Formats: sequence, structure tokens, C-alpha cells
Amino acid sequence: MASQPTMGELLDRIEKLEARALAAEDYREVMNLQAAYGYYVDKGMWDKAADLFAQDGTLEIAGRGVYVGQDRVREYLHHLPPYQDGTIYNHMQLQPVLHIDSEAGTAKGRWRTLMMVGFRGGEGRWGEATYENAYVREDGRWRIASLHGIINFYCEYDEGWHRGGVALLRSTDGLQPDLPPSFEYEAHPKAVIAPFHYDEV
Amino acid sequence: MASQPTMGELLDRIEKLEARALAAEDYREVMNLQAAYGYYVDKGMWDKAADLFAQDGTLEIAGRGVYVGQDRVREYLHHLPPYQDGTIYNHMQLQPVLHIDSEAGTAKGRWRTLMMVGFRGGEGRWGEATYENAYVREDGRWRIASLHGIINFYCEYDEGWHRGGVALLRSTDGLQPDLPPSFEYEAHPKAVIAPFHYDEV
Amino acid sequence: MASQPTMGELLDRIEKLEARALAAEDYREVMNLQAAYGYYVDKGMWDKAADLFAQDGTLEIAGRGVYVGQDRVREYLHHLPPYQDGTIYNHMQLQPVLHIDSEAGTAKGRWRTLMMVGFRGGEGRWGEATYENAYVREDGRWRIASLHGIINFYCEYDEGWHRGGVALLRSTDGLQPDLPPSFEYEAHPKAVIAPFHYDEV
Repeated sequence: MASQPTMGELLDRIEKLEARALAAEDYREVMNLQAAYGYYVDKGMWDKAADLFAQDGTLEIAGRGVYVGQDRVREYLHHLPPYQDGTIYNHMQLQPVLHIDSEAGTAKGRWRTLMMVGFRGGEGRWGEATYENAYVREDGRWRIASLHGIINFYCEYDEGWHRGGVALLRSTDGLQPDLPPSFEYEAHPKAVIAPFHYDEV
Repeated sequence: MASQPTMGELLDRIEKLEARALAAEDYREVMNLQAAYGYYVDKGMWDKAADLFAQDGTLEIAGRGVYVGQDRVREYLHHLPPYQDGTIYNHMQLQPVLHIDSEAGTAKGRWRTLMMVGFRGGEGRWGEATYENAYVREDGRWRIASLHGIINFYCEYDEGWHRGGVALLRSTDGLQPDLPPSFEYEAHPKAVIAPFHYDEV
Repeated sequence: MASQPTMGELLDRIEKLEARALAAEDYREVMNLQAAYGYYVDKGMWDKAADLFAQDGTLEIAGRGVYVGQDRVREYLHHLPPYQDGTIYNHMQLQPVLHIDSEAGTAKGRWRTLMMVGFRGGEGRWGEATYENAYVREDGRWRIASLHGIINFYCEYDEGWHRGGVALLRSTDGLQPDLPPSFEYEAHPKAVIAPFHYDEV
């Protein structure tokens, strides 16, 4: 029979358990964070969405360059179309692969968004993008350190991906990014594979 | 070097860890619960779906009012179309934002469902709704305390959301709700934002 | 007031906590594993996808029979169309119901995939399938012990499920399975309910 553990040994095991408990909490918080982002974007709640970014968080979508810092992210988001009667702007947040370093307070996540975008009487589109995002624990809360959406396709609802394929939007009217795009690509019909933050799971 | 902790101190840390372990288990159980609901609805397994509700659980979908108690939820579900050859009734359960109070045994969750609904030779529709649900631990198992689906849009497959927008169904043939709708709205093409159970994540 | 616990009692509670911490980690790893599979399939990264299977893992999709062992899974995957310009081969991995036996190192999971499949200038399809998968911890990492995709529907984008319903593909050109299909069925417009690995959640 094993000898009784010492107090020091128990303490060591408790400390390891506390680190593991934190990792489980961090997972749930990052899951909630990215899902919350999607609900705010759906409805054009740009200030609520911007609040989810870290103070020096960055945003990069399609080929429009990088916006640096929460203030610039907010400015970018406010240049998107408003949510109002006739608008569908759904960005469903799906399929997370999350790797979290709880001790460091940092995380990376691959997600995808299925998009239903359109305006009654105007354009209607399906779209799908991969996100490769980073997160950081800031003042005790997880925030988005970088959001990078790589568009796999946009297509007109009436065309589908077997006929369609809308070119990437490469700029935002009246707004200059802080940095050029970090990843050069064309969306469907060109093949595109968003970089992976992991090699193995 | 810190002095050795006392037995009482270790016990206190263990008790906190036990509460945190329970919270992690609760998260997984609520995730499974809502996902299971979706699989049962897809296939018209109404009794299995009703069994997931608490004894006094409620259900409210679209503008059809509130059904109170598991028996009434069951009755409502049995008024939905049966699953059979030619039917697609998919209700994918997506994008959870979960806040769980493990000690109280209660939880709230925002989800969305992407719906593919139709009947071969008849109507075919896309739909999308936000859920704001509550959960409760009852007899040691998590159950749905209230399921509230707010429809963002239904549209005919052949029209899309840029031309379409089917009006909310405001009643169920042959069945009266127990309470009027808790939230008055119109779906697309009217703008609608389902209330949030949280202000911050 | 309760008497002080003994060292043995504390040790017992710590051991239980360690098992519960492992279960939380296993959940996150299986979540990541299945999501990673989807991202690799999207982009025709067949070797990366095959690496996610256990050495004696199996794969069974639609009515094409069972491929046994990682080498055969790899061979099957390499018979799928390559990802290249003009291809959309999205397999979104959604709605997990996971039951994990951490001590045994085994797990079962129900998922669904929403598929967008097509080739520019050729066919374009929506599809949706249920997975009933098993997982195993092998050399300290979770791997797919069996992946079984039961197709609910494929339909031509231009037809929708209210007119469409493409018959199951029952073989793979130039490749024989190791075992016949484990579950005989027809997809939409025939009704199909994938078996459940659970009776209650």
C-alpha cells in the first residue's frame, strides 16, 4: 500500500487542479466571446461588437487591410451597412478549434462563419469565411486580440457557387486601413486555404 | 518561503475546485441538451423532445404564444407536421452563449437555429431564429426551463431573403396557448432583435 | 460543526477532482478533433484528415461501405475530388452531443454536417448529414475510432429539397470497401433517422 501523501504533495496536486479548472473556464469564456461577436454583427450592434476587442486588438476582413486598436475597429465596424428593415446580415459563428494557454492568458481559435447577407429588393448573397483569431485575457476578461476573416466564397443567391463567385471587396469607402492585408488571396472561384494556427490537434 | 497551509485551507481550496468541476460538467450537459433537442425536432420525435423540458417548462415559438408545462409543450409539438417521406424539417442548433449558475442549478443560453423546412412537391423554405432559453437542474439532470424562439426570417427557397420574407405564424390550428406572446415583433422584412439575457460577456 | 477531514479523505476528493479535470480536457480535445476534421475535408487535405483517425479507425459515408484502418481511410479520402480552383467542398461540423468515458479513453458523438458542394460550371449542391462517431484516446491523443456519416439529403442548388433529392452514392469508382454498409437506408425524399448512440441526455 502506498504511503500517505505529505501536505506538500497534496498542495501541489491542488495547484495543478486550479490551473486545470481555469483552463476549463477560459474555454467557456472564449466560446461565449466569439458567439457574442456574431450576434452583435448580425444586428449591426457595432459598439457592442467593438467592446469585445482588446484595447490594442486588430480586425482584418476580406482584402480590406488591418485595423489596429479598439477605436479603429469601432470606426471600421461603423462603416458597415446599418441593420434595419429589409436587411439580413447573418454571420453564424461555427466549428471552433481552440487552443488556450491559460497561464499566459492567450488563445488562438479557428472558426468559420456562414453568412446570409442581403437587402430586400437588392442583392442577396451566401458567403462563407474562415476566421483565424487570437484572444487575450485583459483585466480579467477574455477579449479578441485579432480577428482575421478569410473569405472562402461569396455568391449571389440566384447563382450559387457552381455559377457564382463574387470578387473580394478590397477597400472600405472613405476609410483607410492601418496596415496592408496580411494574407493575399482571391476568393472562389480561386482556391483559398486560410493559414492554420495549429499543425496537430 | 510560504508556510505550509493548514488542513482547513486545503479543504477550502478543494471545495472551491469541486464547485468549478461541477460548472464544467454543467456546461457540457447543457450543450448536449440543446443539441439533442434539435436532433429530435428534425425528425418529428416529439415525445423525446418534450421529455427534455422541465416539468413546468415553457415553450414559445414565433408569435404563437406560450405553452406552460411539459404536458402542454408535448401537445404543442404533436401539432407540428409529422416527419415522413418527402419532409425536411432541419433545425440546426448553433452558436451558444451560455451563462450557468451551477450552485443555483439554473442557466441561460442564447442560440440560433438555421432551418431547412419543406415538403417535396410543396413548399421549401430557409429560416433562421434566435433562441433565448433558460435551463434548470431537475432531479439531477439539466432540463429546458423555457425555450423561446424568435424568428429572424423565413423565406421561400425560390425567393431568398432579398425578395422574400414570410409572415410569422401567429397561431396553431386547433390549439390555444396558455399565455399570449411575451415579445411582440414582425420577422423579416421587418428588423427584429431578440432580447439578450446578458449585457456583457 | 463537522470534524476536520483526514488526509485520506482529502486525497480521495483530490483524486475525484483529477478525474473530473481530465473529463473537461477530453471534451475540449474531442471538440477540436471533429472540427479539425471538417476544415481538412473542406480543402481536400486528405492526409491531414486521415491522420485524425486511430490506427484501426473506420470510415463509412453514405451507402459506400466501411473502410477499416487508417491506411484504408486515407485511400478512400484520396479518391474524393481534389480541392482546386472552382471547387467548393464545405463540410461544416455542427451541433455535437458528446458522451465521453474519460477513464476508459473512449467517447461517442453525434454531430451534423451542412454541406455546400460543387464545381463552377458544373454541379452545385446542398447536403446535410448526421454523424454518429466514436473516439478513442490513443498514445495520449484523441483520435476518430469510427466516423459514420448518414446522409439526410443532397439536393441540387437549383432544385432545393422541395423538388430535389439526389440518390445516395453507393460506391466509389475503383475502390472496394472492406465491409458492407452497417445501416441500409435511402436519403431524402425517403425519411431517414440515423441511429442514436444515446437514449437520454
